[in-house]
Amino acid sequence: MQRIIRIGASLLGLAALQAGAADFRAQVQQYRLTHEAAIVADLDALTRLKSVAADPAGILATAHALEEALKTRGFEVSELSTGLKEPPVVFGALKVPNARRTVVFYAHYDGQPVTPSQWSSDPFQPVMRERALTEAARDVDWKKATPPFDPEWRLFGRAVSDDKASIAAFLSAYDALKATHTLPSVNIKVLWEGEEEAGSPHLAQALRDHRKILAADLFLIGDGPVHQTRRPMVYFGARGVMTLEATVYGPLRALHDGHYGNWVPNPAAMAATLIAQMRDDSGRITIPGFHDGVRAITPAEQAALRSLPPVDDALKREFGLGRSEGSEDLPASLMRPALNVRGIRAGQVGEAATNSIPTNAVVSLDFRLVPDQNPAAVRASVERFFTAHGWTLVSEEPDLATRLKYPRLLRVTWDAGYPALREDLDTPAAQAVIAAASKAAGGPVVVLPMAGGSVPLYMFADVFSAPIICLPIVNHDNNQHAANENLRLQNLWDGIDTYAALMAELNW
Amino acid sequence: MQRIIRIGASLLGLAALQAGAADFRAQVQQYRLTHEAAIVADLDALTRLKSVAADPAGILATAHALEEALKTRGFEVSELSTGLKEPPVVFGALKVPNARRTVVFYAHYDGQPVTPSQWSSDPFQPVMRERALTEAARDVDWKKATPPFDPEWRLFGRAVSDDKASIAAFLSAYDALKATHTLPSVNIKVLWEGEEEAGSPHLAQALRDHRKILAADLFLIGDGPVHQTRRPMVYFGARGVMTLEATVYGPLRALHDGHYGNWVPNPAAMAATLIAQMRDDSGRITIPGFHDGVRAITPAEQAALRSLPPVDDALKREFGLGRSEGSEDLPASLMRPALNVRGIRAGQVGEAATNSIPTNAVVSLDFRLVPDQNPAAVRASVERFFTAHGWTLVSEEPDLATRLKYPRLLRVTWDAGYPALREDLDTPAAQAVIAAASKAAGGPVVVLPMAGGSVPLYMFADVFSAPIICLPIVNHDNNQHAANENLRLQNLWDGIDTYAALMAELNW
Repeated sequence: MQRIIRIGASLLGLAALQAGAADFRAQVQQYRLTHEAAIVADLDALTRLKSVAADPAGILATAHALEEALKTRGFEVSELSTGLKEPPVVFGALKVPNARRTVVFYAHYDGQPVTPSQWSSDPFQPVMRERALTEAARDVDWKKATPPFDPEWRLFGRAVSDDKASIAAFLSAYDALKATHTLPSVNIKVLWEGEEEAGSPHLAQALRDHRKILAADLFLIGDGPVHQTRRPMVYFGARGVMTLEATVYGPLRALHDGHYGNWVPNPAAMAATLIAQMRDDSGRITIPGFHDGVRAITPAEQAALRSLPPVDDALKREFGLGRSEGSEDLPASLMRPALNVRGIRAGQVGEAATNSIPTNAVVSLDFRLVPDQNPAAVRASVERFFTAHGWTLVSEEPDLATRLKYPRLLRVTWDAGYPALREDLDTPAAQAVIAAASKAAGGPVVVLPMAGGSVPLYMFADVFSAPIICLPIVNHDNNQHAANENLRLQNLWDGIDTYAALMAELNW
Repeated sequence: MQRIIRIGASLLGLAALQAGAADFRAQVQQYRLTHEAAIVADLDALTRLKSVAADPAGILATAHALEEALKTRGFEVSELSTGLKEPPVVFGALKVPNARRTVVFYAHYDGQPVTPSQWSSDPFQPVMRERALTEAARDVDWKKATPPFDPEWRLFGRAVSDDKASIAAFLSAYDALKATHTLPSVNIKVLWEGEEEAGSPHLAQALRDHRKILAADLFLIGDGPVHQTRRPMVYFGARGVMTLEATVYGPLRALHDGHYGNWVPNPAAMAATLIAQMRDDSGRITIPGFHDGVRAITPAEQAALRSLPPVDDALKREFGLGRSEGSEDLPASLMRPALNVRGIRAGQVGEAATNSIPTNAVVSLDFRLVPDQNPAAVRASVERFFTAHGWTLVSEEPDLATRLKYPRLLRVTWDAGYPALREDLDTPAAQAVIAAASKAAGGPVVVLPMAGGSVPLYMFADVFSAPIICLPIVNHDNNQHAANENLRLQNLWDGIDTYAALMAELNW
């Protein structure tokens, strides 16, 4: 309590100086220009901390470093434990005198697992490169370079963009406010999670347990990439996700298909048929009941989708595609649920292939959900579909008696998954966020009704009634979830501008 | 020429003693009983030679060992070269005074490729086990055991059954003739090929080039397994085969399916649809024109099929199957063409799976053909089918311009393949073979109009007008073409009886 009072007094001091700020945006940019090396050094240091699920000590070290960064800046800091040994949820609070609104800034500090052999450099020893790796860019010794840095430089490392860049931008933006003697326009709360890449298994409980501490008028989620045109973006929801692994059983041992082909069922062909039955050639899911509860796109959302800068042609070139799936453009496609085949394994291909009937086929799928689909109902519709097609579902490896008893055995393993969220575009909070972000960007930001990727926004919606709005800053081509994840510097600079505006100028 | 005269003289000496043989079958069995250890040792040594395509030196060593085995037994030996560096075709000839008929005994000494990690023991370090591996049988130290061996023992190793057992049985049968002073009833020619598992790419040329040397009244093909009831069998043809590897192209790099699912085509789903379009759920091939030229089953063949001992229920139990594909029994199923999925690879499954759209999908297929389908026509029908479904076919990895130009790219790689053959059941030679084999078996052998597996019988039919009849000896559950290939000893013993009868008692 003493601490809060002291911070409040200090902020009052800043407020007295705020009137002197002529052009806040220009001031923030000036601050950044004179601090580029220090800002990059902070992000570099944060990326060196191995905050991946496989390294619990690295997760803890990252949480503690972030807690220290908040304390140094005058935040009241705590860990929102659920009583388990999960990665800490870092919480920070900064009360602003006379502020009417409270905003929670969410990001996650953990990164996806790494397969170092697939990386061009150590995922936890960040390397700066001239530009994207695909252009065979040279490394840059940024520590010896004289700022301002080339904004097309990219820093490579695990979690550097997903989400440590958001955290770094937040901290630098706050520093810019301080340096320019700007009082925040809202009370600020920070919520930095450490197991988002594992599906945020404890976040819902933490939100429920600490609903009073976290109470706010707006949740700003700093996750995901900006628009493919590189223009700053705000988005108002995200698809949900569920994964399913299905194993089709064939003969107990691989059999010569000359001697048994046409009579011994081929599990690879059965798996192929199963997939083909679940979606049509344009990607539309054909499972009865799957679309139950899908909420229609509103006229405002349709208008926002139509206003998005066109990206289809550029992306087809970038990805080497002669067509897209279905007949809609990318933004419209992402408003629908999706069935993605993550992988299939059966028998052998290439030189290792033999003329035999494989023993099984394993199919890994994920479903992207939209509002108001319910994961349990989706799972039920998929399982009904399997059953209607003659499959008997099992959850464990079947024994011989089970194999002999049922003509089509399918072992299904689901993750819990979570639902989608799509916020109304017309609320005062939504309009205020769009206005502040546009001011920071020096022009209209891209407004996306719902991102195609999944963020556990539903967890906030389950506990809080305040709007949940997403504020990404990183480049779309950041390789998140893959090898050689990277952050383009201009995105970090833009992100600082945006975070500063949302702390200092948000009002509704 | 000198050599042939010497052998002839030696055989004349044997002939003088032949009158003393009271019961030939019993004599052969007595010979085998007293030589079991030596016979197994010979097969063991032959299996240690790595006669797989990946090991050209192993192929050569095997050929030379077989040439030596024939020379030692008095055969005139040569290699039927086509002038290329392919694995040698080992040829041996033994002229018998006064014999009216000449019989060519064919087998192949090469084995399928191996994936050692899938084997329970080294594929080229044969291990004897009490029985089939699935029953967790103990290893047997047969070198220290006292014959006669348990006939249920099995020797495990690559090519031990496919076809080295046939070669070993032939050699031992000939040794039995010699030991029992029995003169062959026919002139014997041996043709042992070294690249059957690679599709016999040079055999046709070798047969054409050496048609005079190979001239015969009957070709006996020692390949494939006996009936699933373990009863000795003769079969009168084999399905043809073609393989196809098809690669479906997705994005140039794996993409987050949240951000791009529904818009970036998923190559794994496209590959699944492709497979599902080619065959229905009962395994029937749905490609227009594919069945052109399929010859009807004759009444005699239908009768033979009906006379086959029923195996379906026993095999379902053995393979752990709750159903068979289609509605016919196994023998009838194998009279039809088949499409087998040998393998599929796309993305990742299990723990390695990520929420991404894979870059490609590879499908390995093989087609089993029946008379009188023509491989070129089959290939044309399949490619027409692909084209009709919107695919653009390429034979190499496509460059970026090609990827951008065509909406559905399919890289297809065919092997040449070969057609099927089904001989008339009613010829004098056919009846003589059935009679001799039945005498050796002590009862009627199983007569199968056509085997489901593929043997390059058409190559003989293209050059020679003599009947081509197949004489398998190995157990049906020998795991040929898969890991843990094995030979049941009783099958080797039965094979020796059969080969001995066909050398000594064949007459028409």
